[in-house]
Amino acid sequence: MSDFFELAHRQRAHRFLEPDHVPEADIERILDAAIRAPSAQNTQPWQFVVVQDPQVRQMIANATREAWVGFAREYSRPEVDTYQWTDTDKWAMEALSDAPVIVVVCGDTQAMDAGLLGSSIFPAAQNILLGALALGYGSLLSTLPTFGPVGELLGLPANLIPMAVIPIGRPARRLGPPKRVPFADKTHRDRFGQSWAG
Amino acid sequence: MSDFFELAHRQRAHRFLEPDHVPEADIERILDAAIRAPSAQNTQPWQFVVVQDPQVRQMIANATREAWVGFAREYSRPEVDTYQWTDTDKWAMEALSDAPVIVVVCGDTQAMDAGLLGSSIFPAAQNILLGALALGYGSLLSTLPTFGPVGELLGLPANLIPMAVIPIGRPARRLGPPKRVPFADKTHRDRFGQSWAG
Repeated sequence: MSDFFELAHRQRAHRFLEPDHVPEADIERILDAAIRAPSAQNTQPWQFVVVQDPQVRQMIANATREAWVGFAREYSRPEVDTYQWTDTDKWAMEALSDAPVIVVVCGDTQAMDAGLLGSSIFPAAQNILLGALALGYGSLLSTLPTFGPVGELLGLPANLIPMAVIPIGRPARRLGPPKRVPFADKTHRDRFGQSWAG
Repeated sequence: MSDFFELAHRQRAHRFLEPDHVPEADIERILDAAIRAPSAQNTQPWQFVVVQDPQVRQMIANATREAWVGFAREYSRPEVDTYQWTDTDKWAMEALSDAPVIVVVCGDTQAMDAGLLGSSIFPAAQNILLGALALGYGSLLSTLPTFGPVGELLGLPANLIPMAVIPIGRPARRLGPPKRVPFADKTHRDRFGQSWAG
């Protein structure tokens, strides 16, 4: 049993993963949870590319490094004290290629306009992250690789957009709970500006 | 204990809710799970407006009905056989106003461009849906009301965009498991077009 609240409070971005093989039965259990997520008009506009081939994984890692060095690193915010910038830098520069599995979550623009896909794709992505954690794996959600030529590398048709890249594997580091601003500081009562706490 | 996989497989859009009061301790437990969700560079670009005031709830319901009748109904797809169009129509026309709690999830454009917010907002929204279900509530994720004047009604500042509206309450109907295309039909091995199943 993996209690939802306990998982939610333990969820972290695992940037460093062991290269050990992940059994396909576990990948399947995770994806079978992903497709239960909601989507607009139940259009289920997701497609998944599960990358285990070392060459394709390396191509995704290369595209990610190029996107990071090419523009994203410049716009990133090392000064955000709860953002582990140094780890992200190591991840984008090389650690991603260690992940034994990379799930690329794609959205289908034949189901709806690209700008509307987020609400029908990222709940499924969150199920992947929670499902992986429930089975003892680390993962993270990154959109960075989607700014590189991932669609071309994977041979996606024109209607499919890569929207999230989720590496999965056994965690190489133990991580504590996430650092967050308390919910009460982000919550308003009935109208904006009326404090929840009163 | 609420097992994640069991919750994921039971999750449904609950469009019909009992008007009974939801204890604030439950709302708080749900939001405290929401803020553990991942976000780009840990920017946590969410703000929540928790609407319990009957007048404000009715204003949101009215704005939703207007958006539905005004344009969305015309673009909706009653022919999708797994999409419960008739229930959505009843929901948008009147049933939403029965929900004792409506959580409006907002995204902060000071954290990132509006077009990038989805990957940092909808995982938190999914945590709200799963957390509500774990505590015995029904909920659903709708973006429909955000096409109406919800931001103005709630007095949101210019940098906050309403991105999801989530009514929460005790389910008025028992719902079976969701209908989905099997994951294997949506999953590719290493590259698009290579069947997962082989």
